[in-house]
Amino acid sequence: MNPSLQGVITDVLREVVPSQEEKDAIRRLQDKLLTRAYAVVKQRYSIEPVFTGSIAKGTWMAGAKDIDLFLMFHERVPRDELERTGLDVAKQIVQDMGGRWEIAYAEHPYLRAQIEGHKVDIVPAYDVKDASKIKSAVDRTPHHVRYIQSALDKNLLNEVRLLKKFCVGAGVYGSDLKTEGFSGYLCELLVVEYGTFEDVLRAVVQWRPGTIIDVEEHHAEASLKKKFPHDPLVVIDPVDPNRNVAAVLSLENFLVFIRRAREFLQEPKFSAFFRLPVMAPSMEELQRHLDERQTRFVFIRFSTPDVLDDVLWPQLRKCTERVRTLLEENEFEVLRTGIWSSDVATVLVIELLVDELPAIQKRRGPSAFDAASSKSFLDHYRGYNVFLEDGFWAVEFKRKNRNAMELLRAFLGEGESELRAKGVPSYVAAALHEDVELATGEHVARLLRRFDSLRAFMYNYFHRNLV
Amino acid sequence: MNPSLQGVITDVLREVVPSQEEKDAIRRLQDKLLTRAYAVVKQRYSIEPVFTGSIAKGTWMAGAKDIDLFLMFHERVPRDELERTGLDVAKQIVQDMGGRWEIAYAEHPYLRAQIEGHKVDIVPAYDVKDASKIKSAVDRTPHHVRYIQSALDKNLLNEVRLLKKFCVGAGVYGSDLKTEGFSGYLCELLVVEYGTFEDVLRAVVQWRPGTIIDVEEHHAEASLKKKFPHDPLVVIDPVDPNRNVAAVLSLENFLVFIRRAREFLQEPKFSAFFRLPVMAPSMEELQRHLDERQTRFVFIRFSTPDVLDDVLWPQLRKCTERVRTLLEENEFEVLRTGIWSSDVATVLVIELLVDELPAIQKRRGPSAFDAASSKSFLDHYRGYNVFLEDGFWAVEFKRKNRNAMELLRAFLGEGESELRAKGVPSYVAAALHEDVELATGEHVARLLRRFDSLRAFMYNYFHRNLV
Repeated sequence: MNPSLQGVITDVLREVVPSQEEKDAIRRLQDKLLTRAYAVVKQRYSIEPVFTGSIAKGTWMAGAKDIDLFLMFHERVPRDELERTGLDVAKQIVQDMGGRWEIAYAEHPYLRAQIEGHKVDIVPAYDVKDASKIKSAVDRTPHHVRYIQSALDKNLLNEVRLLKKFCVGAGVYGSDLKTEGFSGYLCELLVVEYGTFEDVLRAVVQWRPGTIIDVEEHHAEASLKKKFPHDPLVVIDPVDPNRNVAAVLSLENFLVFIRRAREFLQEPKFSAFFRLPVMAPSMEELQRHLDERQTRFVFIRFSTPDVLDDVLWPQLRKCTERVRTLLEENEFEVLRTGIWSSDVATVLVIELLVDELPAIQKRRGPSAFDAASSKSFLDHYRGYNVFLEDGFWAVEFKRKNRNAMELLRAFLGEGESELRAKGVPSYVAAALHEDVELATGEHVARLLRRFDSLRAFMYNYFHRNLV
Repeated sequence: MNPSLQGVITDVLREVVPSQEEKDAIRRLQDKLLTRAYAVVKQRYSIEPVFTGSIAKGTWMAGAKDIDLFLMFHERVPRDELERTGLDVAKQIVQDMGGRWEIAYAEHPYLRAQIEGHKVDIVPAYDVKDASKIKSAVDRTPHHVRYIQSALDKNLLNEVRLLKKFCVGAGVYGSDLKTEGFSGYLCELLVVEYGTFEDVLRAVVQWRPGTIIDVEEHHAEASLKKKFPHDPLVVIDPVDPNRNVAAVLSLENFLVFIRRAREFLQEPKFSAFFRLPVMAPSMEELQRHLDERQTRFVFIRFSTPDVLDDVLWPQLRKCTERVRTLLEENEFEVLRTGIWSSDVATVLVIELLVDELPAIQKRRGPSAFDAASSKSFLDHYRGYNVFLEDGFWAVEFKRKNRNAMELLRAFLGEGESELRAKGVPSYVAAALHEDVELATGEHVARLLRRFDSLRAFMYNYFHRNLV
């Protein structure tokens, strides 16, 4: 290892490896929790409490005080009983330990508690022997824990910590649907596959979209390419061969990760492990970019719906695509789009080549040599001016929407159920119906002045570069 | 035949069938010409004079006083001798008959003479036994004459006259490269194939693009579709099975002809046989259309090159396509184009959706999953802002040409040889270099006011409809 790389890694390890004190504190809390859990469970039920998450696997980063306690039920317990009993047991444990709690919801409800300064999630789940036959996603988690506990060399625990922290620095850590990045489990599997943090990076710089990692060699490579044709990275789950652990990883994050690995190996830097807040540029600086491009920006602003990122972000992306389709169907060419969303406000950024088109529109039809298609085209456009272009039929008619802003205003002004019928997802449809601003020109500038982080977002938009 | 059809046909026949007086006059002139030709030829040469053209075939329309006299040379005569001797003999004939002449040029030179009020073309050609082995296009003509003389029933001569006149009325008569319509020979073959004028029209309304007529059944139909995949009508030349007699017929004229046949059979009208001059609309009326469309018109005006339509029109079309390509390469979407050309001036009409675009341009690249293409794309755009769209690479850069007029001005302002190097054909390149006006807005209106027939042309442009 080159000395500069060694030096940086030593420095980062000081940040990410928990102190003995932290480890002891967590161990003590775990012991208490387990004792309490057994006490509660033994009174009435046959339930097995087990720890999961990065703490159970020994790969948590210093200061990450999240403890996951799973209450494993027998497969034969009915779902409603699992939910009811699970929550009862969880509440009892928290109460006995003097903690506070709230109910949270994933596929089924669980308890989110605060105990002795730690966040503790207590999650009821089924103890399913075969991870490919689970009843809900959380049932898979204990399998992952057991696999990592057995497959990951104890000497490599800190390598996982380095890799996770490196992902954080690259902005690609987290498999939630906002981030679309690398999960902790994925980082652990990469270390199982490649070895040290440096080994992982040296492998990563060789990655190309469509890379396949089958740790336990469940499949033939060719069949995997067919099985996951659109995933940039396929990492077969050792406990469930039909699952790609990297399924939510976006192509963009995949490429960002490779670039960061290449840059880091070329010039190791401590700062690569930290996500620096982007300074919001001044309005004057942004205005210069806007003036330089001479495109037409439309900002669609609305109140951010109060839902989990995992729900919100897919909806925001889908809505943006819906708006893009609407514009393109009406021949307004969309140069680029973007999504900015803070706790309070969301802005869909639409950048158009032009926002006004002539009064007439031409549509190209089928080849005049294609008798069947010609007939239906001509039947459809009976009464219009139909002519030929290069052997293809063409028709001219009055354009329905000459102005992009008017088109968007009409679309977004629909009722909530109309918006949903037109493909706008539920929470976004509700938010748009409640309060939407369609901004262009000076109104775009006003929004940019108002939200610092929107300016930061637009700065990144203008400087977006993956290579 | 329905009585109204019969009535119209009777009326038209009065127009197109030459009077006995006209027939006698032509016959007398033919006799004199032939006597004179034999006299000249016998003095020195072994050359066979034969009449060709519609007069020789008995299908000429009343008043069409063009006589074609071919001087048939033996195949073994060298080409330069044929040209020299042919012209000498032709001149001698014309001089002996007190006519005037000028030399004209097709594949080889011939004499265009004026004798006793008739236009007489005297054309040297080779007497080639097999029409598929001719030395130049004119050698085929006597074969056509002999074929029609033997295959066309004498009772159907007037049916050919009706059909030709009907083509005139539809604006599709003539196989020159301006008209791209039906030749006289093609009309004759259709009568040979189908029978009377009415029979022809009843067959025509069943035509679809790709129709094949193989009068002498030289080929299997499937092989012909492969041989002429882009010709709307394939009529195999009885004297040369590799040739499509309808090769120059445009798809548009093919469809116009079918529509006119359908309309005529539904409602027979005398006026269908006459091409009415289009009245030039007023500038106010045209301005209304321009205002309604709200598109951007660019008129490229230059002096019409002094060459045959057969040379000029393919060049004008090619130049228009070149300009269209130039605009589309620069992302200016061309709605439609048109070509107007009078004796003095030519205007290429370009109709654009927009004539101004933003300062930046985006280009879509290959799929990020395609390693080889990705590499060359990224190498090519090193240093640019490269990002992803839907799994495809995209790059943004400064647009080279933001303004369509400036783009065209720069292109058309090139030297003649540069224009030719860029794909503008020779005569048009020379004309553009000498004098070109690039008009838009008020300057378009000025050109429209200046040329009545340009206004008529634009009126048709706005009302273009094939069905």
